Amino acid sequence: MTYGIGMYLKDGLVFLSDSRTNAGVDDISTFGKMTVWEREGDRVLTMLTAGNLAISQAIINQLNEGLARPGKEAEDERDTIYNVPTMFQAARLVGRTIREVQKLDAPHLAPEENFVAVSAILGGQIKGQPPSLFLMYKEGNFIQATADTPFLQIGETKYGKPILDRVLRHETPLAQAVKVGLISLDSTMRSNISVGLPLDMLIYRTDSFKVANQYRLDSSDRYFKDLRRQWSKHLQDTFNKLPNPDWLNDI
Amino acid sequence: MTYGIGMYLKDGLVFLSDSRTNAGVDDISTFGKMTVWEREGDRVLTMLTAGNLAISQAIINQLNEGLARPGKEAEDERDTIYNVPTMFQAARLVGRTIREVQKLDAPHLAPEENFVAVSAILGGQIKGQPPSLFLMYKEGNFIQATADTPFLQIGETKYGKPILDRVLRHETPLAQAVKVGLISLDSTMRSNISVGLPLDMLIYRTDSFKVANQYRLDSSDRYFKDLRRQWSKHLQDTFNKLPNPDWLNDI
Repeated sequence: MTYGIGMYLKDGLVFLSDSRTNAGVDDISTFGKMTVWEREGDRVLTMLTAGNLAISQAIINQLNEGLARPGKEAEDERDTIYNVPTMFQAARLVGRTIREVQKLDAPHLAPEENFVAVSAILGGQIKGQPPSLFLMYKEGNFIQATADTPFLQIGETKYGKPILDRVLRHETPLAQAVKVGLISLDSTMRSNISVGLPLDMLIYRTDSFKVANQYRLDSSDRYFKDLRRQWSKHLQDTFNKLPNPDWLNDI
Repeated sequence: MTYGIGMYLKDGLVFLSDSRTNAGVDDISTFGKMTVWEREGDRVLTMLTAGNLAISQAIINQLNEGLARPGKEAEDERDTIYNVPTMFQAARLVGRTIREVQKLDAPHLAPEENFVAVSAILGGQIKGQPPSLFLMYKEGNFIQATADTPFLQIGETKYGKPILDRVLRHETPLAQAVKVGLISLDSTMRSNISVGLPLDMLIYRTDSFKVANQYRLDSSDRYFKDLRRQWSKHLQDTFNKLPNPDWLNDI
């Protein structure tokens, strides 16, 4: 299983994902699910993937090789993340790539369905445009985050959603957003062992056009360890402080 | 959708469920999902159901009419919740009833599957035995809660699980257990609009053999309103109090 979050904030974009992959509980491995494309000064794009690992990796490899431009075959005219002019076109390119890979592999993997389960979060900024964040579906279509709904999730989304619903707003500063993201991941890891450390994170500040904050956190990270411990303790204290129901008879 | 929790505690059993039923978002109704059977001094049993409403109601009606005892047809020899000798036999009876209803209805509702989605939590105490709590599957089999895992859930279980995982223990006092159950329901209602008020609750104290605490809470309940507001506020305060990451560059 995977848990990935993309945040669309006033000050920039935040991406977090776990790195656990499993084919049954007796076959658990670590695979990063975050891919970053950077051309400093021009564009930074980040993608998180969830679902079938073979399909996800094929999508990323195919994206790195580029897709032939419709009607053209010359190698230097391939569409790639580095030459699409807008984020919308980048999302279209990822969508085309998802469809391409599904067309090749899905019939062999899921003979009664047309698609293999896979999803992705794609976000970033290309010079001359504001940042954008998209949730890509297995069919290759997508939705875009707006200020009203400043986060998108993939994979095991439910355990970690309540804290995001309560706390995260489009106006939340980047450092605070990282904090709520880590708490959301912590809640998910506690309830689903197939989501696990280390965590990958990327924090992108609007108009910086470079990767200045990319991290991999494992269980030894002092800040994350403290955050988990303190959150758990404060939650317990808060819970204890609230009054019990006053309408119970004879309990 | 439904969200139901059954708790297996040192001091007794606690049941909570919402009451929203929907057939699409444009067809939402209120149906209680809690059924109680009481014979004071002898037994109290409570059942929560989730899933297909026609199937759930058929199961409850059939349980109230009783099932013919295998090999006997006389009306006074039917197996009912009131004459089974143990909680294990009660769970077996519910299981038989689920199978009976599935056999009659499932082929007409889900022609390519053998079962219609339905699940239930059954708990209670019969004189001479300790209380027990079971999670019933659509196939009619079941698992039993133990001190290690003091709660069982049905329906939309994930949003409300983290707080139960963090706080609820077999030793938690009944009044506190009600409090954590209400917070778990609140988290679920915030993230899934198909889970909604009013809430049904029953708190059973071990060896009381009577229903002394059964409640229906709607949005006007002062305690629940305060609890939701305070929990949200304290959570926000707690979150704000925790430090931001110290390893961010230039954010």
